[in-house]
Amino acid sequence: MLSVLGLLRDLDSDRLSVQGVYDRVEEALHRREGTVRAFAHLDLDGARRRAAEHPGGAFHGLPFAVKDIIDTADMPTEYGSPIWAGWQPRADAPVVTLTRRAGGIVVGKTRTTELAHLHPTVTTNPHDSSRTPGGSSSGSAAAVAAGMVPFAFGTQTAGSTIRPAAFCGVAALKPSYRLLPTVGVKTFSWHLDTIGLFAPHVADCAFVLAAITGREVRVDTKNFGAPRIGFARTHRWEEASADTRSALESLARRATARGAMVIDVSLPSLFAEAADAHRIINDFEGAESLAWEYDTHGASLAPELRQALDHGRHLSTTAYDAARSTAHAARRKFADLFQDVDVLMTPSAPGAAPEGLGATGNPKFNALWTLLGVPAVNVPGLRDGAGMPLGVQIVAPFGKDRTALAAADWLERTIDRG
Amino acid sequence: MLSVLGLLRDLDSDRLSVQGVYDRVEEALHRREGTVRAFAHLDLDGARRRAAEHPGGAFHGLPFAVKDIIDTADMPTEYGSPIWAGWQPRADAPVVTLTRRAGGIVVGKTRTTELAHLHPTVTTNPHDSSRTPGGSSSGSAAAVAAGMVPFAFGTQTAGSTIRPAAFCGVAALKPSYRLLPTVGVKTFSWHLDTIGLFAPHVADCAFVLAAITGREVRVDTKNFGAPRIGFARTHRWEEASADTRSALESLARRATARGAMVIDVSLPSLFAEAADAHRIINDFEGAESLAWEYDTHGASLAPELRQALDHGRHLSTTAYDAARSTAHAARRKFADLFQDVDVLMTPSAPGAAPEGLGATGNPKFNALWTLLGVPAVNVPGLRDGAGMPLGVQIVAPFGKDRTALAAADWLERTIDRG
Repeated sequence: MLSVLGLLRDLDSDRLSVQGVYDRVEEALHRREGTVRAFAHLDLDGARRRAAEHPGGAFHGLPFAVKDIIDTADMPTEYGSPIWAGWQPRADAPVVTLTRRAGGIVVGKTRTTELAHLHPTVTTNPHDSSRTPGGSSSGSAAAVAAGMVPFAFGTQTAGSTIRPAAFCGVAALKPSYRLLPTVGVKTFSWHLDTIGLFAPHVADCAFVLAAITGREVRVDTKNFGAPRIGFARTHRWEEASADTRSALESLARRATARGAMVIDVSLPSLFAEAADAHRIINDFEGAESLAWEYDTHGASLAPELRQALDHGRHLSTTAYDAARSTAHAARRKFADLFQDVDVLMTPSAPGAAPEGLGATGNPKFNALWTLLGVPAVNVPGLRDGAGMPLGVQIVAPFGKDRTALAAADWLERTIDRG
Repeated sequence: MLSVLGLLRDLDSDRLSVQGVYDRVEEALHRREGTVRAFAHLDLDGARRRAAEHPGGAFHGLPFAVKDIIDTADMPTEYGSPIWAGWQPRADAPVVTLTRRAGGIVVGKTRTTELAHLHPTVTTNPHDSSRTPGGSSSGSAAAVAAGMVPFAFGTQTAGSTIRPAAFCGVAALKPSYRLLPTVGVKTFSWHLDTIGLFAPHVADCAFVLAAITGREVRVDTKNFGAPRIGFARTHRWEEASADTRSALESLARRATARGAMVIDVSLPSLFAEAADAHRIINDFEGAESLAWEYDTHGASLAPELRQALDHGRHLSTTAYDAARSTAHAARRKFADLFQDVDVLMTPSAPGAAPEGLGATGNPKFNALWTLLGVPAVNVPGLRDGAGMPLGVQIVAPFGKDRTALAAADWLERTIDRG
């Protein structure tokens, strides 16, 4: 994989040129893209040319990829939907402009499930092409995992960033709600949609977030020490695979051995209710956001999407308002869980990437954190018995993105030590 | 003016045909549009044809107008900006689809200030063409005031719905934050942008909101009785015109005489801080939302917009986070003001529409309520010494849209009784 910080160090020490980065990208695309199929649109030559113009900034011309539900002024944006075939926005989404401003170059648009819902795209898992890469940010996770880009943007409304990152074995961050603007991103649920980012390592994600936002969130610039971790198995723990459960239990022991404090944290029942509220908000708002698609092209929508929109359309405003109240109550209560710990540790997904390309896996270990709007990080490095990536997820209170990233980075290094 | 409820009553009793409604619209356009210049795009013939197809629903084919920062699939959407000249979205914004679903027909797109910020458009005030109609929803307010449409959508980020409604003498509602989805609306500030609606009377606004959302918010279906009103002069009271101050004082006396309870309510200093926080959030988020316009077409932006974006770009994330915290604290505290009253009464604008078309007036009596995300209604009917409309504003706690509308409707009838 192409570590952002690794490439920047090599560029800085002249061991690598910017064009050399593009050579590596080209080589990986040549070798992997035929099978992985991460890109809906690609312009390597254009990106090379722009990188040759010395864009400077934090990224010095590094290439990045953008999920194809995020607007780009110079590339089509088709939302993984035939309804939007050939659609060309006039403007970049702000997150794209801000990254270009920091010297990043858009190399391509990555494949997404249909309208960022569940219906799969053609992307395969770079670790096993018979398995799903996860969704909805399928192409972004796979492109980073296959070494085709150093970083990529995705989005998460239920588990669309953390889950594919876990399945593909890369780091990912779902930042605090609205830390990255979702302007210029195809809306599904305005209270849930969040821009996420993928990179090989946690420290790369932190660097990218810092470069775009100007916030002090890097984790490679100082030593944060061992974190205080709350092991949150959640009420869904028994639904995680045996591999996932034993990998997390073992990691908890290794973290303790390396100096972390690890205690069990159980979530009050309000948070199980909040996880249920997620679907109501998701489907109710989805039915409004995609009202035009539903009314004008309803018959061409994937059955699972059509079903979710039908569900959303028939929910009462009373049910929706109650779900929103539950979400508010859970958000207010969430900080109370952190009196003795810095972060929570919990699975990123029920297990490794499922076999087959007909479904993208289940977001049951993600929806709650999205609903709460709190930062969540996928820590890569764990493997199951078959060698497939497993994800462990670090969650922190709202606005504590750096706390989440620092603990995740510490845990990633703990995993790397074996 | 063309009252929504009045037209529907006349349609129901066969005193008027749907085509008869379009005759009235055509007549008003013929007589007024040359001077008022409310429309950026108009398709009366197309709307007539679609209305002839018996669309049913709550609106039975009534025409409506849409501010030109809200996407329409069958009409250009140019944001009042040369950067976006000729721009044609593929989809309708959800608020447009939902209104079409309820039997409304888009007759045209109404003029907006540049990118819904301060730089004026060519629209004039229907009561005096030498005066501003207010902004940024200039055309929507003017089109309703000139009797050219029964209702129209606008937006409000500071005072862009309530202020033009006050200047043009029409009713308007800025609903609770996100009650109407802002999907498909050009974003300025994601924490502030709110869809607003304009109609001749308060009860018309309530009917339109009910028809779109399916929520029980109509005020013409039962008797709500006299409200308990908190007269909130605010710390800006001395900045209101003498006409405005005496009109509101006199209205408070008439409301009391008609059975309302009216008591003085003074806002804690936190709310003055919150009003100041508005500009920080507005400009910081505006600078991100319009990053593409700034970077690629910066020189062609109006000076006042460019200045706001420059201000926003140089604000620290610390200042922004502090402003967001102040907003949160004020939102939590706001409900405390309603222990003895149902609603607050406060000016809609500093005075009547200012002379000249070079500026759209000041949102100083609006920004706080937008920041709080609470429902605000402009009550029409008051006049100054020169016969120009003055606005009185009713504000209620978050989610209490019907309470605000019912009190505003009661106050409108109090004004009408003279």
